[in-house]
This record gives sequence, C-alpha cells and structure tokens, in this order.
Amino acid sequence: MLLSEMICATNLAWGMYPGLSHGAADALKHHGTDEQKSTYLTKLVEGVWTGTMCLTEPHCGTDLGLIKTRAVPADGDAYAITGTKIFISAGEHDLAENIIHLVLAKLPDAPEGSKGISLFVVPKFLPDAQGNVGERNAVSCGSLEHKMGIHGNATCVMNFDGATGYLVGPPNKGLACMFTMMNAARLGVGIQGLGLIEASFQNSLSYARDRLQMRGLSGKQAPDKPADPIIVHPDVRRMLLTQKAFAEGGRMLVLYTAQMLDLVEHGQPGEERDHAETLLGLLTPIVKAFLTEVGFESTNEGVQIYGGHGFIKEWGMEQLVRDARITRLYEGTTGIQALDLLGRKVLMSQGETLKVFTKEIHKFCKAEADNPALKEFVVPLSKLNAEWGELTMGVGMKAMQDREEVGAASVDYLMYSGYVTLAYLFARAAKHASVSLEGDDKAFYAAKLNTARFYYQRLLPRTKAHAQMIQSGASSLMAISSEDFGLGFEI
Amino acid sequence: MLLSEMICATNLAWGMYPGLSHGAADALKHHGTDEQKSTYLTKLVEGVWTGTMCLTEPHCGTDLGLIKTRAVPADGDAYAITGTKIFISAGEHDLAENIIHLVLAKLPDAPEGSKGISLFVVPKFLPDAQGNVGERNAVSCGSLEHKMGIHGNATCVMNFDGATGYLVGPPNKGLACMFTMMNAARLGVGIQGLGLIEASFQNSLSYARDRLQMRGLSGKQAPDKPADPIIVHPDVRRMLLTQKAFAEGGRMLVLYTAQMLDLVEHGQPGEERDHAETLLGLLTPIVKAFLTEVGFESTNEGVQIYGGHGFIKEWGMEQLVRDARITRLYEGTTGIQALDLLGRKVLMSQGETLKVFTKEIHKFCKAEADNPALKEFVVPLSKLNAEWGELTMGVGMKAMQDREEVGAASVDYLMYSGYVTLAYLFARAAKHASVSLEGDDKAFYAAKLNTARFYYQRLLPRTKAHAQMIQSGASSLMAISSEDFGLGFEI
Repeated sequence: MLLSEMICATNLAWGMYPGLSHGAADALKHHGTDEQKSTYLTKLVEGVWTGTMCLTEPHCGTDLGLIKTRAVPADGDAYAITGTKIFISAGEHDLAENIIHLVLAKLPDAPEGSKGISLFVVPKFLPDAQGNVGERNAVSCGSLEHKMGIHGNATCVMNFDGATGYLVGPPNKGLACMFTMMNAARLGVGIQGLGLIEASFQNSLSYARDRLQMRGLSGKQAPDKPADPIIVHPDVRRMLLTQKAFAEGGRMLVLYTAQMLDLVEHGQPGEERDHAETLLGLLTPIVKAFLTEVGFESTNEGVQIYGGHGFIKEWGMEQLVRDARITRLYEGTTGIQALDLLGRKVLMSQGETLKVFTKEIHKFCKAEADNPALKEFVVPLSKLNAEWGELTMGVGMKAMQDREEVGAASVDYLMYSGYVTLAYLFARAAKHASVSLEGDDKAFYAAKLNTARFYYQRLLPRTKAHAQMIQSGASSLMAISSEDFGLGFEI
Repeated sequence: MLLSEMICATNLAWGMYPGLSHGAADALKHHGTDEQKSTYLTKLVEGVWTGTMCLTEPHCGTDLGLIKTRAVPADGDAYAITGTKIFISAGEHDLAENIIHLVLAKLPDAPEGSKGISLFVVPKFLPDAQGNVGERNAVSCGSLEHKMGIHGNATCVMNFDGATGYLVGPPNKGLACMFTMMNAARLGVGIQGLGLIEASFQNSLSYARDRLQMRGLSGKQAPDKPADPIIVHPDVRRMLLTQKAFAEGGRMLVLYTAQMLDLVEHGQPGEERDHAETLLGLLTPIVKAFLTEVGFESTNEGVQIYGGHGFIKEWGMEQLVRDARITRLYEGTTGIQALDLLGRKVLMSQGETLKVFTKEIHKFCKAEADNPALKEFVVPLSKLNAEWGELTMGVGMKAMQDREEVGAASVDYLMYSGYVTLAYLFARAAKHASVSLEGDDKAFYAAKLNTARFYYQRLLPRTKAHAQMIQSGASSLMAISSEDFGLGFEI
C-alpha cells in the first residue's frame, strides 16, 4: 500500500494498468479453476499480460442488476459473450501481449436483477495449448472515451461479439466474486486520493517557498528580496497545512486499514482477527470516499496556492485536480460508499460494527485522560466519539420509521466518520510525538504535533456542520416533487 | 447583470470577449481624454473592436507593484511600451478589426511599488486620422496559454516591443484607474460563478429525471420501469437542492448588489446613496469569492449526479467544472477577496461598514419577530447576525496584537459572511413566498419556501464550522517554520 501511494503520486493513470492486473489476478486466484490459475496467473503477475474489470454498461453502473450482456453456452466449457461494456480502464492498448477481461454477464436462465449475474474470463487472444498467445477473440475496442482526466489510461468502450469466455466461480454468483476485486479496488482508489494529495502538497510547498508576492501582514520577512515568499502568508499556510494534514492523516488511515487487512488475510482465527475484519469492513468505504473527497479538495488547494499559474497546464497542478475528480466516482461514488457505511455496515449490524471502533477509541481516551501533553487532543476526541454513537442512534431510530432517512444522512455521516477517524489517528501520533521531542528527530516530531494541532483546530470543526446536517433529517430533501424542481425556468 | 448570468450559463469563455470590452470601455469613459473617448468608445460599444486588461506579468499577479513593463516618452503625447504580459484574456483573435489593450506600465521616474504604476491604452492597430484601423502596432501574441478550462477564450502571452501607447488618467495613478474596471470585473466573475451553477443545475435536473438506477430506499417509485429515476434518491436530491439553493440565493445576492450599484451610479447624493455605497463595497468581495467557491462546488455536484458519465467530455458537465475553476483565481483569488473584505472593508472601518448591513438584517428580524410563518428563518438568522458582529470584534481585538490574525481568519470569515448574507436574502424571499401561497403561482412559492428551508437546514450549518475556525486563531498556522514543512520527505 505504501508503494501504491508512491505510484499514484507519480503517475496515477499509468498505475491503473498494474492495478487492474492485480485485481484480475486476485479474482482468478480466489475464484478461478486450477486450469484458469495456471493459464493466467503467472502472466498477469509478471506483467506480460494485463487485466481489466468489465462491469459498467451504458445504461447502468451502480445498478449492475440491469446489465444486458449475455453469455450463451458454446463448445465444451466455453460461453459466447455478447454485449457492450463502457468505461473499461486499460481495455485496449499495446503495453502487453494479451489483455484478460473479467466480464459480468447473464446466463440464459439467470434470475432477474443482481442475483442473476455471472463472472467470465474473456482473453483478447485465446491462449494456445502451450499457454501462449493464440487466436484473436471476438472482443474489440469500439472507441476511446474522452475524459476530464487520467488521460494516460485508455478508457474504452468494449464490444463483445460472441466472444469466447469461461465461467469464473459458480453461475449467478458473479457479483460476489467481483467483490473480491472491488473491496481491494476501493482501498486502491482511496490510496489514489492520498497519492494525489502528497504530490500536490510537495509541489505546492516548493512553489510557496519560491514565489515572491506581497509583504507579510506584520512586516517584511525577506527584506533583501523584492517581496516575501508566499509561504509567510497565513492563508497560504492554511492551504498547505490542509494538504499536509490530509496527507499525513490519510496515510495513517491507509496503514491502519492495511494492518487490519494483514490480520484478516494472514492472522489466526479468533477474537483479534474478528475485530480486524469488522474494522476493515467499516473503514473500507471511509478510505475510499473520505480520502477521495479530501483528495479533490487538497489538489484544488494546490491550484489555489499557484494562483493563476495553477490553471495553466505546464505546471501540472490542474492535472492532479482532473485526475482526482474520477476518484470520487469510480468503484462506487461517494454516495454509494456512504450508503455502504451507514446502511450496510453500521445500521444493519444495529450499530455493533461501529461500537467495535468507538470502544477502541474510548479505551485510548481513557488511558490518556490524565496525560497533560495530550489533553488538547483527548478532550475533543472523547466528546466526538460519544457524539458519533449518539448521531448513529438518532439516524437509526428515524430510519425505523422512514428508510429515506438513511440516504438523507449518509454522505454527511461518512464525512463525519472520516474526520473523527483521522482525529483518533492524529491523537495516537501525537502521543508518540509527545514522548519523542527530546530525541534525534525532535524537529520532525514537533512538526507532527503541530500538524495534529492544526488538524484539531482548523479541520475537525467541520464535524459540527456535518453533525447538524445529519440531524436535520430527510424532510427538506423529500418535500419537493420532481416537477416542482424546475418551476421558474421550465415552461 | 441578468443578461450576464445568461451569457455565462450559455458560454462563459465566449462571454469574456464582450465582458472585457465592457471593462475597457468603462475605464476609458471614466479616465480617458475626450479624444480617447471619441476614438475608442463607439467602436468598443458596437463590438467592432474588443478590449483587454493587461496587468499580470510572469513574476507578479497579485502584487502589481512588482511589474517591469516600462513606458518611455516618445513623439508628442505617445509613449513607447516595452514588456511582457501573461494571462491576457482575449489578447489576440480574429473576432474584431482591432484590439484595444489597457496596459499597466511604469514611467522612467516612477516611485517604487504600487504607487508608481500608470495606465496606457495600446491599440493593436493605431487608428488613422479618420478613426479607422491604421498602422500595425508593435504588440504581438507570444503564445497561447494551455489552460484547464475556458478553452473558448484566447488567453495570451502579449509582447510589447516599444509599442505606441497613450496615458490614460494621471501618471502613477494607473492602479486606481484600473480599479474602475476591477470592481466591475469582480462582480462579473461572481456572476460567472452563478451562471455556471444554473447551467449545471438545469442539466443535472434533467439527467436525474431520466436516468434509471436502483430502487428507492423505501420502495419502488416507478414500478413500470426497470429501475427508479435517480431523482427519488435523497442524496441525489441533496446535491440538486444544493445547486438550486446556491443558484437562487446567488441570484438574489447579485440582484441585491445590482440595486446598490444603480443607487451609487444614478442615485441622488444623500443617506440612501451612502448606505448603498457602503453595502456595495462590503458585498463586492462576497459576490466574487463566495459565488465562485460555491459555484465550483455546485458544478462538481453536477458531475457527481451524472456519475461516471459526468467525467466524460461529451456530456459537457466536466467542462463546467473546468471553467468554474478559473473563477476562484482571476480578478483576485478567494484569499485576496477575503483580505479585502475583512481587512480593508470591515476592520479598517472599525467594523462600521459591517454594522450598516447587520443593522439592516436586525431591523428585518425585529419586524418579523412575531410572524409565525417566518420563525424557522428569523430565529436562526437573528442569532447568526449577532454572532457575525461578535466574531468580527473578536478578530479585530486579536488583530490589534498581531496582524497575521487577519489573514488567518479571512477566508473562513468571507465564507461565513456569504452564508449569512444568503440566509438574509432567503428569509426575505420566504417572507414574500409565505404571503403568496394562495395565488396563481402557489406551486412556485411553495418550492421557493422549500428551497429556503433546505438552505437553512442543510447549508447554513456550515457557519458553525467557519465560526469555530475563525476563532481558532493564527497560532496553528504560524508555528511551523518554512523548513519544517518538508520534514519526513525532504533530505
């Protein structure tokens, strides 16, 4: 995950080629037959072949139950796949000898909706008996999408015209198999957000030190220069520190989640692994949606620090914004992640999932209650942690009367949860920093404490707004009819 | 201003050509000689010639005191202008016979800094004795900037190689003359933000009614269709209503400000005009910065409503985001507007400027205190109005000790001010709507009341976060040194 962040910070669009191959390899590893594994896995891991995920169709993305792509039994264990998929990242290119598409399609007798979806592997070139590239399959790129960003990645319309494919996993269980890839992909997209924040921050910092403009409000800071470097201005510092706090806080969140993933995948069965599995489920939508939302904000702060130059392509800062924009959308929009968090993870467990985490935070706050060095962090964290539970209970009660209350509160709930989660991790970082202020890296730890303080004073107050919006309920959203939205300009 | 909004909603990049001509004509009308007026005004107003504003240079935008472009006396009343200007919108094109550049430059004996800047008119073709296009002047386009957005406008690097120019207004008073254009331009950019919100909202609304995806959380809404239109989902409604509330609230703000401008330009001297002039000064940075900030947010909500399709160019939604991005930067960034509001307008008048407005709001709240139909608006508005004064006093007190406190609070202060201003205007709209619910347009007024209610419940709570951040002070911003920002990744 640390390497992923570096790849995303360096070239997000390129990083998607190995990223999708990784996802395809994971799905085959977990759900493929031995023959499929031996045919595809080595090539995918070596990077000689690359992979894709073919889910979306023109009329459906979120609602995969609506897909129209069909799979009809053909010779032996093969199927003939027919349909059109859109937004297929890395769908067609010359970077690899072969492209292995993992495709969602419906069998002839499939039940309606999302329970009737199966997963198929459809290679661009059918492997021959030796496992090398053989006959061309009937899958082709219909066109390249013209997008706002990630121009370095070929996003394709893919046409399957009776292409030969093979079932992966059981019939009609394709969505569950695809979720193996999707959960990893969601964490991956959160890391994309993080990588972009770091890239934007590093560029912004160097620009803010170089660019001379105006004098400091309280007097000249660089009297030998025609003006002061803009890093002296408090509002520029506010923007830089916003990037810095989201980069450092986001990195803690990703690594904390990675620890849970390690425990789930490699730990011994038992309480610790159960705890990790619960937290992984809770944190996945937060990593995905919170880090991409604040990633978009942070890359925009980067443009703002560059002023007019930020809008000019040659500086590279506006590209980070355009690349960041997709991360709020793909692998499930922020709205979908928010429903997953509040509806599926928290409320469906009667709040038990959340309690696993708030208990951990509560334990930390209690243990540090008498630590004077941490008072500025532990006091507000403890209050927020309690409020988090109360807000959840409040929405849960309302939702028992009206399910729309869940959707009305969900995005604010997700953002609130993200801010509190980062506050917990910053408090832990502050604990470590506060006892390291005398060592060799004392300047580093002093800066870390400063960033934690900035986070608590200048970013965490956003929870106040989110809390009130969560509590405001669904009525102001649902009262107006679809027709009445346009009164005043529609005739 | 109403027409401006429509032009911006339709084609912002094109609208800049007449917009800049308008600004150039204004500057010449106010500061030009009779000869300059007769030479340029008719052609500019007819649109046969267009205008530009040449301020920015590669090393300075905000800090115009640093400009290097020089003006040396030449034949008669002419000057030879030499220097390079960048980011010149409508700088070179074939849409008009001639392009009239208004250029900031320094005379040989000019004082240092912003007090030594003069304004010159530099036509692309020197008008002949009959006032027609004559000899080509030594001003040329060095290159076109490659930008994130507003691709329909030619943004140019302009080289002046001893170009012939004529002084406009007194020597060394160029910045004051340019401010004639700049205040109008700032209102114009605020209206660009508004136009983009409206365009994004209208598109989003029509997409949200058409796009079928998932079933409503509380059951099927369109049982005859394979899925429900996404406008049934509360989170989609939250995004649509955010756009709608900012469009309607922003329009009220622009028209309220336009009334003040009319009074200032055409009213009789006296108390009413003084009041209008004060409010115009106070509201101009709010119109510029608040409407472009929420404009960027709203166009992004538009992309989010379209899901993955929003990221694809052919739908047009991502273009609105890219176009909106520049509005937070040009004509003074949000940070510069915020310093103008808090530092120049509010604190330099010891808060008197703000009091003129908060008194007006207070009067409204008092008059409606017993109106049960307005209670849900007047109660929170009245509290916020009082808090606005207290926050101002708080920053003012701190700023007496440390000027950096102004810059630390400024952007949050501007956003807070914007939210309260829109709350006042929505309360007035609600007053009118509440007595119009029985008339012919009752559905329209019911929708207006609903939008006001949404604004108060779902957007106004953001003031809570801004208030706390304003109060948090400068220390967490200023404590860390420029060097220590990079600890952890710089060697």
